[in-house]
Amino acid sequence: VHRFYAPDITAGSRIALPAEEARHATRVLRLKAGAQVVVFDGRGLEYVARIEDVSPTSILVAAIGAHAPAAEARVPVTLAQGLLKSDKMDRVIRDAVMLGAAAVQPFLSARTELPRAVLRTQGRRVRWERIALSSVKQSGRAVIPPVHDICEFGDVVRLDGGARYVLVEPAAAPEMASKGIASFRDQPPPQRAIIMVGPEGGWAPDELQLAVSSGMVPLTLGSRTLRADAAGAAALTLLGFLWGDR
Amino acid sequence: VHRFYAPDITAGSRIALPAEEARHATRVLRLKAGAQVVVFDGRGLEYVARIEDVSPTSILVAAIGAHAPAAEARVPVTLAQGLLKSDKMDRVIRDAVMLGAAAVQPFLSARTELPRAVLRTQGRRVRWERIALSSVKQSGRAVIPPVHDICEFGDVVRLDGGARYVLVEPAAAPEMASKGIASFRDQPPPQRAIIMVGPEGGWAPDELQLAVSSGMVPLTLGSRTLRADAAGAAALTLLGFLWGDR
Repeated sequence: VHRFYAPDITAGSRIALPAEEARHATRVLRLKAGAQVVVFDGRGLEYVARIEDVSPTSILVAAIGAHAPAAEARVPVTLAQGLLKSDKMDRVIRDAVMLGAAAVQPFLSARTELPRAVLRTQGRRVRWERIALSSVKQSGRAVIPPVHDICEFGDVVRLDGGARYVLVEPAAAPEMASKGIASFRDQPPPQRAIIMVGPEGGWAPDELQLAVSSGMVPLTLGSRTLRADAAGAAALTLLGFLWGDR
Repeated sequence: VHRFYAPDITAGSRIALPAEEARHATRVLRLKAGAQVVVFDGRGLEYVARIEDVSPTSILVAAIGAHAPAAEARVPVTLAQGLLKSDKMDRVIRDAVMLGAAAVQPFLSARTELPRAVLRTQGRRVRWERIALSSVKQSGRAVIPPVHDICEFGDVVRLDGGARYVLVEPAAAPEMASKGIASFRDQPPPQRAIIMVGPEGGWAPDELQLAVSSGMVPLTLGSRTLRADAAGAAALTLLGFLWGDR
């Protein structure tokens, strides 16, 4: 069944799909009046809907019943990701949304490998939001998690986010007695959580000190070193499993 | 510390690095005689080594001590992956190796979206082996897991592999009472395992029937639909966690 995003849909409503969704429905999928689809509002509600009218520029749909989207994670987890090159960052956002992240917060840090000039390039935000929406549609979620504006390392460390973790390499910080994720099994889930993943070059020593002195808990995910564009996905997979779905 | 692969290295030996490794060491990293590196044999042993001699065409290293590689998974898990387009398959192999897979087995199935003509293209195997080696080096493993030749769906189903799972979508096969991974918590780990992940289009109904009648256990990983190129990584992450490292 094809899924569409329409922020205005409510129970029993009859609405036009947003322009991009309508274009996809007509030009790519070639759906006709009478077809049944699923339409979600991006905030967690989703409906069975019928296409009532198709014109070259718009599609009218009527919500005709309730539909259960994929469960949201019981504990909202924000993935704070040190900025990576374009295609890697795309992957991070695609995976994070699929794996149930509540939000993605890109940030700059000492070892960010992108020249600051690149950061002034327009269009990044629009691209990320498009990727997030596409991953929401594919994964069956009805909530579109926000991809926040790029911020600085110091801003992430200061976020007030429930349980707060900073991912470290297995061998990177033995003196910090980094906590393995296995120790989570016996603890009750937090209200919400943030997990901070560094860029390719990892953390500068003073960053890690600052994170820890700000109350973030160093966390490792087993004995192998995970790539920067894959570590957040592994963390979200494990935390989602340990803390369960709603 | 830079890590190199040299299948001939043994305790106390003095050997030449393989040509490609030597090229990387001299041309990219510009290492000189006297530098300390780590050299692993691809079968699980790894040494601290000193570069003894550097010439334009070769590098001699001497194993001067033991070194502990990243722990291998306690339960060897083979990821059988329905063949995906080139870049997606690259990602699958890179991630699987990083996440500790014991082997990768690509296979063709009813919904494989690649034309068979593409499959006759040479070079795929060499490319995959290069990706696997690169991921081994990056992740800190000292075992290079094999990437097997492409086989058919029916071959995978007939593999004798300990615990055998076929990954299904959350909503795909309710009538099969697919087993959530949470039910693994209370069971002892198997000796070894295979997890089978379909291509983008998923399983044909008769494939799923055949897998199940061959004794494979349908498995879901939570309530969201995972992309074909990301599902194996999520499964390996969870199984690795549940079954622990050696």
